Amino acid sequence: MTRRGEWAARQKIGYLMQQGVDHPDCLSLAAGLVDYSSLPVELVHTVMERILSDPARARAALQYGTTPGSMTFRHQIGEFLAELDETETRPDEVSADRILITTGSQQFLDLVSQAVFDPGDICLVTAPSYFVYLSTLEGIGVEMVAVACDDEGICPDALDERLRQIDEAGQLHRVKMLYLVSYFDNPRGITMTLERREQVLEVLIRWSDRQFIYLLEDAAYREIWFDDPPPPSILSLDRHKNRVIYTQTFSKSLSPGLRTAFGVLPQELVKPVTDLKSIHDFGSPHLNQFVIANLIETGEYARHVAEVRRSYRDKSEAMWRGLEDYILPLPETDARRPEGGLYVWLRCTAANCETNFDRRLFQTAVDHQKVMFVPGELFYSDPDDPDASRTMRLSFGVQPIDNLAKGVRRLGDALTEVGGFAESQT
Amino acid sequence: MTRRGEWAARQKIGYLMQQGVDHPDCLSLAAGLVDYSSLPVELVHTVMERILSDPARARAALQYGTTPGSMTFRHQIGEFLAELDETETRPDEVSADRILITTGSQQFLDLVSQAVFDPGDICLVTAPSYFVYLSTLEGIGVEMVAVACDDEGICPDALDERLRQIDEAGQLHRVKMLYLVSYFDNPRGITMTLERREQVLEVLIRWSDRQFIYLLEDAAYREIWFDDPPPPSILSLDRHKNRVIYTQTFSKSLSPGLRTAFGVLPQELVKPVTDLKSIHDFGSPHLNQFVIANLIETGEYARHVAEVRRSYRDKSEAMWRGLEDYILPLPETDARRPEGGLYVWLRCTAANCETNFDRRLFQTAVDHQKVMFVPGELFYSDPDDPDASRTMRLSFGVQPIDNLAKGVRRLGDALTEVGGFAESQT
Repeated sequence: MTRRGEWAARQKIGYLMQQGVDHPDCLSLAAGLVDYSSLPVELVHTVMERILSDPARARAALQYGTTPGSMTFRHQIGEFLAELDETETRPDEVSADRILITTGSQQFLDLVSQAVFDPGDICLVTAPSYFVYLSTLEGIGVEMVAVACDDEGICPDALDERLRQIDEAGQLHRVKMLYLVSYFDNPRGITMTLERREQVLEVLIRWSDRQFIYLLEDAAYREIWFDDPPPPSILSLDRHKNRVIYTQTFSKSLSPGLRTAFGVLPQELVKPVTDLKSIHDFGSPHLNQFVIANLIETGEYARHVAEVRRSYRDKSEAMWRGLEDYILPLPETDARRPEGGLYVWLRCTAANCETNFDRRLFQTAVDHQKVMFVPGELFYSDPDDPDASRTMRLSFGVQPIDNLAKGVRRLGDALTEVGGFAESQT
Repeated sequence: MTRRGEWAARQKIGYLMQQGVDHPDCLSLAAGLVDYSSLPVELVHTVMERILSDPARARAALQYGTTPGSMTFRHQIGEFLAELDETETRPDEVSADRILITTGSQQFLDLVSQAVFDPGDICLVTAPSYFVYLSTLEGIGVEMVAVACDDEGICPDALDERLRQIDEAGQLHRVKMLYLVSYFDNPRGITMTLERREQVLEVLIRWSDRQFIYLLEDAAYREIWFDDPPPPSILSLDRHKNRVIYTQTFSKSLSPGLRTAFGVLPQELVKPVTDLKSIHDFGSPHLNQFVIANLIETGEYARHVAEVRRSYRDKSEAMWRGLEDYILPLPETDARRPEGGLYVWLRCTAANCETNFDRRLFQTAVDHQKVMFVPGELFYSDPDDPDASRTMRLSFGVQPIDNLAKGVRRLGDALTEVGGFAESQT
């Protein structure tokens, strides 16, 4: 096997997916799929009708596109971002030539990483962090160095301190990028405050004389807020437009089956990343780009996202009630009520309640209680991080609302069983 | 820039595409796009209606799929291949678990190459060969070694001789794969005879004791035959099912805007290639797979392909008549009448008629005569191959039928001008 092949084989997600396949009878609070009932069947039906009944437009959609994606669509994305970031007064804030359309944001993350990192380089990540991206980094031979975070996101002081340590070890030249999920992150559901966004940029700018470090902002869950819209992107705070790489997807807010996302690149990365995409696939499906472009243009996308938000808010409340009823009363458990996104991050520090795949809790949950969660260990680049065995991710994404409290109750029963606190709770 | 980034930047296709952008007034016989008028607008309209008006099916199509692709679709592809290869009596000839759905066959070619090659390995290619794949190989740091071919495809004796030379140089262990476009190849339009297919496999098998070499069969143009269906795939001749990697696309026969292709892998490559795809994008758009699966199931795909064949046959005849009228009467020109595919490979050995981008013929064609071709140099891994400056690829793919003879006449005028044979021809 080649080096790239070996690296790719080490993905933990494979083990997780296999668990799903091996236990089809489980109620899965693990899967990161989106809500079936809010998938935009009628909307896509309507817009396909609109596109395909216009022969000239239909032919354009069914022909090859270009590698970076449809120019009309990319202009629209620029305006769409300006609206999200309330930078409408600066219409060229993100120009279309810096925008790349990709097959899901995963493709963008992979392409950027291949363009930025040589094997042996360092990427700064949070602990915990989105585990699929950790695998992507591993897949290209990148070393991950973790930075602590709290309830407002990554800690700027911890970032600065980490850079100092790396510098002292003479390794600063290897640090190429910091990766952050800036909105309702995966797995913790935390959104970085505006202050944190500014502080993190400041730290990176302060180190610029010594080493230029990109910031990759993954805004996958940005539009899935429940009560209040979240702060502007770090991208919009990057005055020189040379440091922040940004990606956002239509998989969560619209439909993963269309597999369409976009990324914004600093000018100097536009050519290298586009060249790589050209080798990977020449460009993402043209027809799918036409569909989303049309939905944005007509305002149907915005209306749909508002519905999606309501639906996930209701589901998050159902899961939260379950947690309040069945889990948070148990000893040494802790979670934070989500304000957006698809996840709840649960901590359990009681004896015998380690969350790892190979420990009793996971096996009891899956075999006896028929419920599945994602063990915290997947989200830590450092397997010895003590939190790795004390945390788990629960998703309210794919399960119908009525299953959420039921799933949480089963998990509570599993915790009760392995934690031995049955009597105090019944 | 990273090594991968640097390699990716060297793509010649970028230069060609830039020429297209810089000369929008040119009649392009260069572009490899497909015929606009035969794009399946009504067909895709009908099948979208069918899928999207069935809520359960529509939701499945709009949800995430799996990394290797829809299992129903992959089973269908297995049957589809059995029909093409007339191996229906061996229904499991190509089992669904060996099939991977990709975003165009380019993605399959890239993934396979990343799984098979480490930088510094050798890939055997034909001279000339599909230039985009040459760039893909360059993009992962693979050395290309050319093997001669004639009107029946790659020459088995030349292949054997090349392997002997590499062995004598002590480099045999670096040879991992042979790449062939086996049907109506790009750029020559040649289809390998059945005998050649068997002979090439025999040569590779004979060398197996010393070095196991994969054969990557690119069947992009397989279904675009004009009068007689071509021979069975090399894949179907691979008795041990361990050597031939195969890819075929729906971009030429149906629609490039759906960006959907498939590949067949030997069992031992299934996991490494799927793992890489998982890192690249988790899987190709689900909805697009549903569309093609449905078109195959209903027989509408087969009827459409029959129409596509007729359309390209008519266009190839129009181009051929142009060649007979305006170019083949010129001194030292030669071409072969296409029996399928999208291309005519033209050779001109007259003085001053070098076909390279930076020579007078290309500039005269583009600037004075407003016609564009693809210089032969793009298709040779060895830039010093004498044929590289004496050949060009003409495509009858994208131009409407009425433009084909006109384009060829302009090219004839350019040849006449730079070759200085004006008087003998007017």
